[in-house]
Amino acid sequence: MPVPTLVWENDALVLIDQTRLPETYATLVCSNVPTVAEAIKSLRVRGAPAIGVSAAYGVVLAADEALASGADFDAHVRAGIETLSRTRPTAVNLFWALARMEGVLNASLGQSPELCRKALLAEANAIFEEDRRVCRQIGKNGAALLGDRTTVLTHCNAGGLATADYGTALAVVYAAVEAGKHVAVFADETRPLLQGSRLTAWELHQSGVDVTVICDNMAAVVLRQKNIDCVIVGADRIAANGDVANKIGTYGLAILAREHGVPFYVAAPLSTIDMRLDSGDLIPIEERKSEEITHGMGRQTAPDGIKVYNPAFDVTPHALVTAIITEQGIAKTPYRAAFETWFARC
Amino acid sequence: MPVPTLVWENDALVLIDQTRLPETYATLVCSNVPTVAEAIKSLRVRGAPAIGVSAAYGVVLAADEALASGADFDAHVRAGIETLSRTRPTAVNLFWALARMEGVLNASLGQSPELCRKALLAEANAIFEEDRRVCRQIGKNGAALLGDRTTVLTHCNAGGLATADYGTALAVVYAAVEAGKHVAVFADETRPLLQGSRLTAWELHQSGVDVTVICDNMAAVVLRQKNIDCVIVGADRIAANGDVANKIGTYGLAILAREHGVPFYVAAPLSTIDMRLDSGDLIPIEERKSEEITHGMGRQTAPDGIKVYNPAFDVTPHALVTAIITEQGIAKTPYRAAFETWFARC
Repeated sequence: MPVPTLVWENDALVLIDQTRLPETYATLVCSNVPTVAEAIKSLRVRGAPAIGVSAAYGVVLAADEALASGADFDAHVRAGIETLSRTRPTAVNLFWALARMEGVLNASLGQSPELCRKALLAEANAIFEEDRRVCRQIGKNGAALLGDRTTVLTHCNAGGLATADYGTALAVVYAAVEAGKHVAVFADETRPLLQGSRLTAWELHQSGVDVTVICDNMAAVVLRQKNIDCVIVGADRIAANGDVANKIGTYGLAILAREHGVPFYVAAPLSTIDMRLDSGDLIPIEERKSEEITHGMGRQTAPDGIKVYNPAFDVTPHALVTAIITEQGIAKTPYRAAFETWFARC
Repeated sequence: MPVPTLVWENDALVLIDQTRLPETYATLVCSNVPTVAEAIKSLRVRGAPAIGVSAAYGVVLAADEALASGADFDAHVRAGIETLSRTRPTAVNLFWALARMEGVLNASLGQSPELCRKALLAEANAIFEEDRRVCRQIGKNGAALLGDRTTVLTHCNAGGLATADYGTALAVVYAAVEAGKHVAVFADETRPLLQGSRLTAWELHQSGVDVTVICDNMAAVVLRQKNIDCVIVGADRIAANGDVANKIGTYGLAILAREHGVPFYVAAPLSTIDMRLDSGDLIPIEERKSEEITHGMGRQTAPDGIKVYNPAFDVTPHALVTAIITEQGIAKTPYRAAFETWFARC
């Protein structure tokens, strides 16, 4: 079982500081909005679902700030939501969770700040619990796609550390292992921030799952040589047509998977699907600072003043996606129809 | 003009220690075989042609050791050749250069050690000068493929630092720039050892060429977004059918180039072509230690005891190679016929 990524404890959000893994396991106590916002911006907490849950608790902290300072409650909480919404642009779960919290705030108009705060905490807890439940269902649905002996290639970290505690892509692995299947995983290290080697390898290793780390540029050879049965990745936002924004490198990996006849699966909750966007071209892609590449892991690895291009995500066209696994089931092309059926059901 | 990678000076081989770039520009003086062998093994000098030239001078140092110690000259030089041949398995230029040196040794049987040493130095100097001349011709031949305004994507370092001083893949860039063309380069950083960001970016920047560093997993997006006109890479060994062993990641990049309709060129001297091997399946692929991945940049980036797969090279099937640029001209499929014509001519 993967470790819990975040908990609400003593009126604070307590996170694993993922920037310090795997060298150091340390938690960070966030007692106010700026700390949560900084944790999201700096990727101390990352992964679309985990960002959503963290932001939800961040809104509760905004309420607590207002109660403690005597500031205008409604205005202060809305300012907190605004601050949290400006942390990262690509993962839609952030905006989805904040919209739910704002809905609760709107519904509480006229109630006392204390009651409103109670409702906000209940909503954040609901988002947290839903994430846990949804991830388990994603795992169960996806595990049906895996044989009794399966080798999976994954990219970045769509594991317990990217969610409340069970993952999306790795939920499929965990659920298959729990069902008695033998699953081996190759994990792309995922430059520049190495979420694959630092986080995916760490949590799979903790859970006793057979994992091998490779550099991103070894994926093609691994697909050719290592009998990979499928690629499974998470998603930061999925457009209505099934185009998938996910960690940079996903698009290339999808091309390589198709070239080698290997199915390419995306595992994500419905909260990652953005029906307002017709295609992936409309998904905003975050560019991050060049130092992530030039001074990645403590040492300068590119000349002073060098130009760098550092998009944090890319978009994989739906034509390269074999199936999208959600808590509602498994969709294949045409994705829009499947998504509409699911959303109509909810 | 790129910097000289190695020189023979005061009876020693003086190398740029490429493991210290780009932070520190430092040279290493190699006065004996073990130092040269260690420099090749540790990638202080790397790149197929530069390894060949360095090994040739290493044989001269073996001769000097024998002369200084009074050891059996022939046996000691042959032992030196043996030591040097065991440094790295994939780049065929190493064995090609050592075979040339051994040929000189064989031809000098019966001569005095002093005369033989003189002949060995003359041969090493010839290999060095040929490399400089050949690289310039590769550049000239390849530059004809580039338009007046061209954007090139490259992988690893097949530049001046991989040869005596002018490069193979980057020779094409240098020659095009010298011919007045405007060339911009995207350089894959090339994990695990970052020859792209540390070396290619450094030498192009030194030479005033417009260069942008990306992580390897960004190549697909760059091919889709940045109007890349061609990919150019070097080679460590080319089989008779045109299959190309080159730095890990090349194979995947070739697939991505084809997917985006971008020509994929390989630039290498004839000494990189191994006509004894019918196909790339027969090329020995070096696997290197896991620490290159887990402790790559000064910081531990994967959990203790994690499994790692670290092949240093991969093989790109000839079907993915648009053309191979050598000092003899530009070959297209079927490669074997072109290679046979070239070798018949030499």
